[in-house]
Amino acid sequence: MKNKNNTSYTANILPYIPFFYVIWSDDLVSASEINVVKKAIENDETLDHTAKKTLISWLHPDTPPVNSEIKSWKSTINHAQVKLIESDIYPLTSFSKRLLGYYYSDEKENEQLKHIEVNLGIQPNHYHHLFDVEVIEEITSDYYDSSAIDAILKGEFAVGVSKFHETLKNPIFNWDIQRTKEDFRAKVLDQVHYLAQEKYGAIAYPKAYGGVNDMESYAFIFEHLMYVDGSLAIKFGVQFGLFGGSIQKLGTTYHHDRYLSDAGAAKLLGCFAMTETGHGSNVRGIKTTATYDAKEDCIVIHTPGKNDNKEYIGNALDAKMASVFAQLIVNGKNEGVHAILVPIRDENHTLYKGITIEDNGYKLGLNGVDNGKIWFHQVRVPRENLLNKYGSITEDGHYHSDIKNPNKRFFTMLGTLVGGRICVARAGLGGAKMALTIAIKHALERRQFNDSIKIQEDLLMDYPTHQLRLTPAVAKAYVYDIALQHIMKVYSDETIIDKREVETQVAGLKSIITWYANATIQECREACGGKGYLIENRIPDLKGDVDIFTTFEGDNTVLLQLAAKGVLSDFKAEFNSNGFVSVLKLLSTQLSDKLSTINPLYANKVDADHLYNPKFHKHAFSYRTRRLTYSLAMRIRDYIKKGVPSYHAFLKVQTHLLALGKAYSCELAFDTFISFTENMKDKKHQELFKKISTLYALHEIRSDAAWYLEQGYIGSSKSKAIRQRVERLCTELRPHIEVLVDGFGIPEHLITAPIAKSRRNNLEVS
Amino acid sequence: MKNKNNTSYTANILPYIPFFYVIWSDDLVSASEINVVKKAIENDETLDHTAKKTLISWLHPDTPPVNSEIKSWKSTINHAQVKLIESDIYPLTSFSKRLLGYYYSDEKENEQLKHIEVNLGIQPNHYHHLFDVEVIEEITSDYYDSSAIDAILKGEFAVGVSKFHETLKNPIFNWDIQRTKEDFRAKVLDQVHYLAQEKYGAIAYPKAYGGVNDMESYAFIFEHLMYVDGSLAIKFGVQFGLFGGSIQKLGTTYHHDRYLSDAGAAKLLGCFAMTETGHGSNVRGIKTTATYDAKEDCIVIHTPGKNDNKEYIGNALDAKMASVFAQLIVNGKNEGVHAILVPIRDENHTLYKGITIEDNGYKLGLNGVDNGKIWFHQVRVPRENLLNKYGSITEDGHYHSDIKNPNKRFFTMLGTLVGGRICVARAGLGGAKMALTIAIKHALERRQFNDSIKIQEDLLMDYPTHQLRLTPAVAKAYVYDIALQHIMKVYSDETIIDKREVETQVAGLKSIITWYANATIQECREACGGKGYLIENRIPDLKGDVDIFTTFEGDNTVLLQLAAKGVLSDFKAEFNSNGFVSVLKLLSTQLSDKLSTINPLYANKVDADHLYNPKFHKHAFSYRTRRLTYSLAMRIRDYIKKGVPSYHAFLKVQTHLLALGKAYSCELAFDTFISFTENMKDKKHQELFKKISTLYALHEIRSDAAWYLEQGYIGSSKSKAIRQRVERLCTELRPHIEVLVDGFGIPEHLITAPIAKSRRNNLEVS
Repeated sequence: MKNKNNTSYTANILPYIPFFYVIWSDDLVSASEINVVKKAIENDETLDHTAKKTLISWLHPDTPPVNSEIKSWKSTINHAQVKLIESDIYPLTSFSKRLLGYYYSDEKENEQLKHIEVNLGIQPNHYHHLFDVEVIEEITSDYYDSSAIDAILKGEFAVGVSKFHETLKNPIFNWDIQRTKEDFRAKVLDQVHYLAQEKYGAIAYPKAYGGVNDMESYAFIFEHLMYVDGSLAIKFGVQFGLFGGSIQKLGTTYHHDRYLSDAGAAKLLGCFAMTETGHGSNVRGIKTTATYDAKEDCIVIHTPGKNDNKEYIGNALDAKMASVFAQLIVNGKNEGVHAILVPIRDENHTLYKGITIEDNGYKLGLNGVDNGKIWFHQVRVPRENLLNKYGSITEDGHYHSDIKNPNKRFFTMLGTLVGGRICVARAGLGGAKMALTIAIKHALERRQFNDSIKIQEDLLMDYPTHQLRLTPAVAKAYVYDIALQHIMKVYSDETIIDKREVETQVAGLKSIITWYANATIQECREACGGKGYLIENRIPDLKGDVDIFTTFEGDNTVLLQLAAKGVLSDFKAEFNSNGFVSVLKLLSTQLSDKLSTINPLYANKVDADHLYNPKFHKHAFSYRTRRLTYSLAMRIRDYIKKGVPSYHAFLKVQTHLLALGKAYSCELAFDTFISFTENMKDKKHQELFKKISTLYALHEIRSDAAWYLEQGYIGSSKSKAIRQRVERLCTELRPHIEVLVDGFGIPEHLITAPIAKSRRNNLEVS
Repeated sequence: MKNKNNTSYTANILPYIPFFYVIWSDDLVSASEINVVKKAIENDETLDHTAKKTLISWLHPDTPPVNSEIKSWKSTINHAQVKLIESDIYPLTSFSKRLLGYYYSDEKENEQLKHIEVNLGIQPNHYHHLFDVEVIEEITSDYYDSSAIDAILKGEFAVGVSKFHETLKNPIFNWDIQRTKEDFRAKVLDQVHYLAQEKYGAIAYPKAYGGVNDMESYAFIFEHLMYVDGSLAIKFGVQFGLFGGSIQKLGTTYHHDRYLSDAGAAKLLGCFAMTETGHGSNVRGIKTTATYDAKEDCIVIHTPGKNDNKEYIGNALDAKMASVFAQLIVNGKNEGVHAILVPIRDENHTLYKGITIEDNGYKLGLNGVDNGKIWFHQVRVPRENLLNKYGSITEDGHYHSDIKNPNKRFFTMLGTLVGGRICVARAGLGGAKMALTIAIKHALERRQFNDSIKIQEDLLMDYPTHQLRLTPAVAKAYVYDIALQHIMKVYSDETIIDKREVETQVAGLKSIITWYANATIQECREACGGKGYLIENRIPDLKGDVDIFTTFEGDNTVLLQLAAKGVLSDFKAEFNSNGFVSVLKLLSTQLSDKLSTINPLYANKVDADHLYNPKFHKHAFSYRTRRLTYSLAMRIRDYIKKGVPSYHAFLKVQTHLLALGKAYSCELAFDTFISFTENMKDKKHQELFKKISTLYALHEIRSDAAWYLEQGYIGSSKSKAIRQRVERLCTELRPHIEVLVDGFGIPEHLITAPIAKSRRNNLEVS
């Protein structure tokens, strides 16, 4: 073959040169990857024995090619000055073809090279900077389809959600900067009325009361409202989810018939008065009393002390009625916390006698929600106003409940409200998705710094640090989305009577997801620099609104302990300190059997095949949960054996409880996602989802590497390999990052941040 | 001796029982701690041989006392029902004395027990819950003195700062909720004028211009202004530090005489116009041009393109003049970035022709600062307006600079502005201190949950998780305070001409401290629950204001890379890619010598003596910095050897650079603090400072445990021991936590958050 430009490489070897240069310029080549290349070489019929031998000789990790060889590859490539076109289907193979054309006028495509390119997952952004050649850049790839991804995520709800997108196009939902709480609240109230009118308020209620009994769609709507405005989501949730939900779930037909339709239509505005200034997390300790007055057959609601008023109550300024949680006292006996409907304002919006309400004032976020404090002074309501599904006062003035154990009764009542916690997590997730969409679209337009030889600066998204700060967060959004959809499905499944497991799971997921949301929004703020600080770019409001999600609807620190205790008591019908020692004994026997010692070979397996294998990920997560459960149970048992009271034993292991709560929730989310991925019918996008799950898993293991190393579950080299793989996966996902955020399916008209729109606008103009 | 109540323990052994119960109920007893107890027993003359033998027999970690023995201790204690009084000087020894009194009517105090109590550092909050006896609780201890601590921190600046506290009592500084930017800005401007009138604006300027040449006091004032309001601090910094500072540091006598006094008196309001919409971090790439027009002997300032306007410019709406950074073009040659004074408004506050200014609008925080965008259209200013300390245009129209290398000239100019970066870190630290003070005072008042047998709920501050989330942050505040004071001293030292090392250090410290500040404020917000979300409690504003510190005055991610590059080039006069390979070679030789392999015995030393030894901490930090430098240098060298261009080699190691930047800064802060502590004269408080440095060090090592484990620097057991010690140190500091935040010396009248005041108010009433 004619060698029209001078090169020392033969025509069959030459196309391999760019591949070898890419492979060896970085050192991240594992045995399995070398095997891919070897096999390709062996199968390549264009290669004679000598060529094969030469190529194979360049594939020994222990005796890598010398630097002068690598430099000679590089100069061979640069000398040719052929273009690297990122939009080619096989960019590096095509590049090799052109290289061959330059030296030998023969542009043959090599099938084996395609094989290497695909199986090594090498992409232009891995190597385009390695060559001093012209790069025809591609800011984003259209290999995957964002609408297909969106459809996969929404599943059976796609049609309903699309319809809802149309509803949100009403100008009433246009976003603007709001600084005065009164104006902001008025706007949000209008929005709530509009949604009620469009039948979205009652969506989770039974058909008889204007709804379609669809809690899962309610959760979708809730998340979408975050894209409009956080205050709207919360106000909507207070009115229809908490106030209406308490009537629906804690009340009986009497209350449903009287109030539920009006609540769903926002004709009766109400609030959910549970939290007190003195008692947030410890609901069982609230002080407001509801004393049954047998003589007048009514219930007297009263705030006994200075810090016993209700606080942070949403809708407090707009509501006509409150669902008040109070200690129910019947015939002098405290029957525990119950909810009672208390009218608070008349039709002229004047407070009823005995009720005092104060505005909570300005907050870090959610200033479109009218949070307030409420005091009750001997306020009398009819006996029937007790929401009496789980405990009632009979006509002859006696307390009755089918659930005899007061503890169990309390948790059953609270348990019915777990749906709200799922929605809060969904809203947090929605905030994170919105912030990621804005930050990533900005990073695909904004350039800063360059190599001195280049004219154009580099895109922020092409910086490894930028990829590492945003890409794992995108992966997590996918995992949490599927996990939250699944848990809502289980929660809404009326055939599952015993909801304790779901409660444990929701407590954990709500915590890790709202923390994730806050951390992500903060990363996005910083990733956008000064632009992220401007309110017009939406991230500031997301940050302020989502912040409170970590401590309301259950403080995360408290919830994680709840989740951990749920894991511990998994084996028993009910958790109490008497039976606890035997639980621990049982637990420790069952767990220690499973916790086999980790084989050192396994702990140091760094091969890509292994690191990318979901079996490894599942095992790592399950090992962590079990190990933490076991060691926690052992610690508590030891304390109790020594006579340390159970309450204090739990205090002593508090940080351990948090670790278990997190580990459990992470495993739960991952397992749900893996099951979902395995069942996907769309094989092309399934690959993408698998990559997402791998990034999620490796990133999570990396975040907790200290623990895994301490346990000897992973060794040093494996830990380092995981770190490198996380960075590499972020780079591999780089071309698809815009498709991934578009896949969230946030309605385009709601992405109003100027920094997220300018590239789009420029594209439309050009 | 009479045994008036039945016990199986003899009178000499009995006082040891509470100690042994405390020691064995937890398992955290190391060899050195057991030795303390052993020695005390051996020295105890009240013990006969049998008693000693019995006590010593309870001290073997391998054969600990059986559980029935421990339970018998506990019932002996509980049965007596003597009080545990936390305010006793030796609470446990006193408790033992009363126990002896109950059983043997003989209340002798045992000196050896005091010795154990002190040397084991066991405190009532470690064990008070272990006994079922009445505890006379102590919310805070007055063993240490907050005023003494405050005086130690302020050092020679104490008098000046106290005077400044008085200035801040003027009602003009009263805090209130501000929602409208126009009103807010007007208020802040008034405050700035008042401070100027009180001579604080010019404090860092030379005497001839109204100042006292005291940059260190300026930094104290800057931090204190954060306690008043973040917007005030920043507006003050823009006017006096950036605008005035640019005249002072980049200008010559001509500019000083004409403008500096007026700038310091706030008679001439100015802005510092460096950042552009298209160029934030990459200052060298700014596009605004300053073209010398020889014919008219003037400089023409111009904004060439759409994204080349100045942006986020503080004081943009109030200023009459701007210090504009632009590419200086003289005789067709670009001489690089220079600053030029440009009048922007006339005395009627009308914009001069060619100048357009737009409000940047509402931001996440700092809404009292008038940030804006500025465009220049062919604006002409006299040649003399060039701030010409490092580069001037001669009368005959030629460019002249004593610094021939344009690179060096650019960095010299920017280097003079490094003081601003120190102040930003100080302000961030001030925000963190304020938030910690509020959150901790709240946690010492707020109770939630209890043991079912108790009436009163537990204080938030008594929960281990709460201690762990706040106490290390308090320790860090102390370390960073001293570090920033020290770096400002070095920066202000005019005998040190070469400021490059300081620049590297400031870049690193500013990054880790502003990130620390944000994370801390967020922890405080969550630690205060719903109360932390209310603007009246101040944390929301701190959160919004401090947020931007991570990306302004240098984006942290960029600055850390700068710091890391500074470390790499420590050996060379100037960092450039040509000489880089030889630097790397030198570096690797020098470093590999020092990086001896870690002895496995050392890697698994878990004794308290060792873990609390500052030598271990110093070694751990220095090892990390050196190891990361070495491995980074090796990686870059390998890339360069293979022909990867230097710019891309650095991209490939970007996350490694960040790790080095952080490690270096952490070591620097710690070393500074350790030196400070060693020189303290007040021995009592020195002990406290030593404990702070230990907590800082162990917490930091713990945070990076994955890395230390990967390197084999610590083994599993040491890693776990460090984790336990961090928790234990938090508990040990629990009684002193209020004194520690009071030691920050935030003026009482500025701590306006209702949640930080209510206990104080209650104390005053009672």
